[in-house]
Amino acid sequence: MDRNPPKRSYCVVGVGGVGGYYGARLAMAGHHVHWVGRSDVDHLRSHGLRVTSRRGDMQLTDLDVSGPDDPLPVTDVVVVATKTTGNDDMAMWLAERLAGRTTIVMVLQNGLDVERPFARQLARTAPDAPVLGAMSFICSARIGPGHIEHVDYERVTVGGFTTDGSPVPAGSPAAVAIAAVVDDLAAAGVPCEGLDDLLAGRWRKLVWNIPFNGLSVVLDATTAEMVGDPDCRNLVRSLMTEVVDAAAGMGRGLDDGVINAMFDSTERMVPYAPSMKLDYLARRPLELDAIYAEPIRQAAAGGVPMVRTEALWRQLVFLDRRNRTGDSLPT
Amino acid sequence: MDRNPPKRSYCVVGVGGVGGYYGARLAMAGHHVHWVGRSDVDHLRSHGLRVTSRRGDMQLTDLDVSGPDDPLPVTDVVVVATKTTGNDDMAMWLAERLAGRTTIVMVLQNGLDVERPFARQLARTAPDAPVLGAMSFICSARIGPGHIEHVDYERVTVGGFTTDGSPVPAGSPAAVAIAAVVDDLAAAGVPCEGLDDLLAGRWRKLVWNIPFNGLSVVLDATTAEMVGDPDCRNLVRSLMTEVVDAAAGMGRGLDDGVINAMFDSTERMVPYAPSMKLDYLARRPLELDAIYAEPIRQAAAGGVPMVRTEALWRQLVFLDRRNRTGDSLPT
Repeated sequence: MDRNPPKRSYCVVGVGGVGGYYGARLAMAGHHVHWVGRSDVDHLRSHGLRVTSRRGDMQLTDLDVSGPDDPLPVTDVVVVATKTTGNDDMAMWLAERLAGRTTIVMVLQNGLDVERPFARQLARTAPDAPVLGAMSFICSARIGPGHIEHVDYERVTVGGFTTDGSPVPAGSPAAVAIAAVVDDLAAAGVPCEGLDDLLAGRWRKLVWNIPFNGLSVVLDATTAEMVGDPDCRNLVRSLMTEVVDAAAGMGRGLDDGVINAMFDSTERMVPYAPSMKLDYLARRPLELDAIYAEPIRQAAAGGVPMVRTEALWRQLVFLDRRNRTGDSLPT
Repeated sequence: MDRNPPKRSYCVVGVGGVGGYYGARLAMAGHHVHWVGRSDVDHLRSHGLRVTSRRGDMQLTDLDVSGPDDPLPVTDVVVVATKTTGNDDMAMWLAERLAGRTTIVMVLQNGLDVERPFARQLARTAPDAPVLGAMSFICSARIGPGHIEHVDYERVTVGGFTTDGSPVPAGSPAAVAIAAVVDDLAAAGVPCEGLDDLLAGRWRKLVWNIPFNGLSVVLDATTAEMVGDPDCRNLVRSLMTEVVDAAAGMGRGLDDGVINAMFDSTERMVPYAPSMKLDYLARRPLELDAIYAEPIRQAAAGGVPMVRTEALWRQLVFLDRRNRTGDSLPT
């Protein structure tokens, strides 16, 4: 019996605030981590990865790094930590590189149904690769080439993706994969939990993302400003209630305390600009399909209109379009 | 029989984009106009009033001007063209100065129920003064001391205020007053129409004001940008529909074509920053009570929740508060 089995190896695709942080934690815990970067590839190769964190800074050197055009080495797990806005392309890219493998694919992103394109493409090339969905409650961001700043929180939840949203069967490869990843993250010191019902977890996360991500852009406000203003709190609460109602309509009844818990953790959070705000400032595409359009679409199909969420979404689509195209009419 | 009865005299309170424009038209048509200004009093006295308009520029000199602390000369009509945000004070101010008179008071403002404080105060001091409500569809603004720029439209509708919202009886002093003011404006070349039902007119105007005023601030957008973007159009339409439904719930069924008519006139409008946007840029209080809070409150009391309008209103309250107090938390 091997008392010290080799630690699972990881491939982290997307070295941003999320991938960079958790990848660094896994590397510090002794896992081999292969990094797939894009604009930072050269910097990561020559200078490594730096994570500034109130839990202790990390500096990783001699990284194993590849770019989008390189083949993907064999690892036990691939963590997809890119923006959802590129998921269709990313799913094809990954499926091509994982052909025939049984690699665990963990889609660590915000939004609803973000695993589906990966599951669809992998079913074609790597049908035995379990597809997991994961969410991260974390305040962190890439603040420069190869430099991640982590400012608050770091909780991860992981569930198994199934086409029809049903729970993964006990003992199935996906269930085993969930346990494995949860073990690794927990051993690396990351608070982590497996989910019986991935979709309930996704909807629960949307209770936070839908109000705070969007309003941070529309109102140009930090989380602290939003929870510190009575009218904004009222608006946030009404949006949260709409998400909770939509989740219930989709058969995902959330715990009664979810809204108050979200307010509590946001009040205790350092004043924070959510990732959507940072994307907006950098004129990157906003993750509007995964966080807004898909939940709105599913809820509407289920007979639960999300009218406030839809109004906020339309505002965001307008702002995102103008922000990226500069296509504003003469004033 | 007097073939040339003296033209009615007017007092215009508030020399902004609305009061300045219509007052100038009445003065050009031969009415004596007394002006009540605030910050511009000295400028108006020494330099007069200048109106730049695509219908022809107007330059008025030797104005009869007073300030807020002066008594009010006797005129046939008082036009209240100040911001609604000061209405409670303004109503007391006016009631004191009109004590015992039968002056027609025409409240030329946006919003719902804006006449009520005037009616309440005048009932105490000048119970025979008819109180009218008027709305102006106009693109104009004060662009400097004593300088009004008129860029598009200039239509006015006038109705009689009654405590319970019922129409004014034919032949009543209010009905006679409506006809008089409409005659004067029409003779001055202003497209003008009397309303049998003031509240229907107020709700109809809100169909435009609620989406365009608020979104111009929240999205930092002109009318042209808003009607030129498919998602923003969708959002505007959903807000308009909510206002039409609320109006119907309050017994004010609007004409079927109202929404399309509003879109049409906005599309034909020069790209325009509504007055609320100008107020926001100047860090003046926004007219949120008259245009949002009161309609929302009345509709809710009537069993018609205006959820999108309320969400927009909360955004505006947050932005207005931060804009004027500078009270934003550290970022």
